[in-house]
Amino acid sequence: MSISLEIVGDRWSLLIVRDLMVRGLRTFKEFQQSGEGIATNILSDRLRKLESREIITRENDPADRRRARYRLTQKGIDLAAVLLELLVWGARHENTGVPCGVIETMAQNRECILAEVHRRWKERDPSPLQVKGEWRLPRSDPQKVK
Amino acid sequence: MSISLEIVGDRWSLLIVRDLMVRGLRTFKEFQQSGEGIATNILSDRLRKLESREIITRENDPADRRRARYRLTQKGIDLAAVLLELLVWGARHENTGVPCGVIETMAQNRECILAEVHRRWKERDPSPLQVKGEWRLPRSDPQKVK
Repeated sequence: MSISLEIVGDRWSLLIVRDLMVRGLRTFKEFQQSGEGIATNILSDRLRKLESREIITRENDPADRRRARYRLTQKGIDLAAVLLELLVWGARHENTGVPCGVIETMAQNRECILAEVHRRWKERDPSPLQVKGEWRLPRSDPQKVK
Repeated sequence: MSISLEIVGDRWSLLIVRDLMVRGLRTFKEFQQSGEGIATNILSDRLRKLESREIITRENDPADRRRARYRLTQKGIDLAAVLLELLVWGARHENTGVPCGVIETMAQNRECILAEVHRRWKERDPSPLQVKGEWRLPRSDPQKVK
């Protein structure tokens, strides 16, 4: 536990992981503009730490070889369960703006959502699960998750 | 998610919650001596923040009224699912010293473990789930969790 927290017990690191996981963000510029107001030096530092912890890897962008794109590793995508529980907890106990029905549906469909997150990662499916705060239905089980 | 992280995206805060949840620690002195090497001023600060966020409450110790005892609120105990996922993730991907079999059994018995954590909290059962790094069997289902 203590070791897990040393790695992920940092707000910015987990936000970067979330942006990669459900928002489809990939580049430094995208993280910078994601709306959380992260300072450039903190973003650089956290990307470097996440890379050294093997939670993300850096690849060349096929469209622009000077630009780096980031991708979650297996270890990184396995944080999906932690993030999902954090999301459910926050929505239940804080005023997050996520509608109650959405969260309870998510809580009841954990396995389905996690399977979809893993599938998108594995198949490099770039379509985000969350767009501007709104959740998109996993294709595998559209009637369950709204 | 961002709101959840503002609250719990801090290593020390989550370690205090863990100490209350599974180690049976209750007082300032116990947290201080729990082995993580937290500085007194940081411990005070985090206890105050956790209290103001309604994750813990402070009560008088029946044995010594000058001493405060801390207790998780409903909101605090609901972090159990987050901590369990962090534990499973850390044990799978880092060298935490938790035997692989223990973790996989935990991962397969999430609901049972979370129910036991909630029961102990509700009934104010002080027996810790984890003692010196070793996990104790939930009474409810002793053959499942080793």
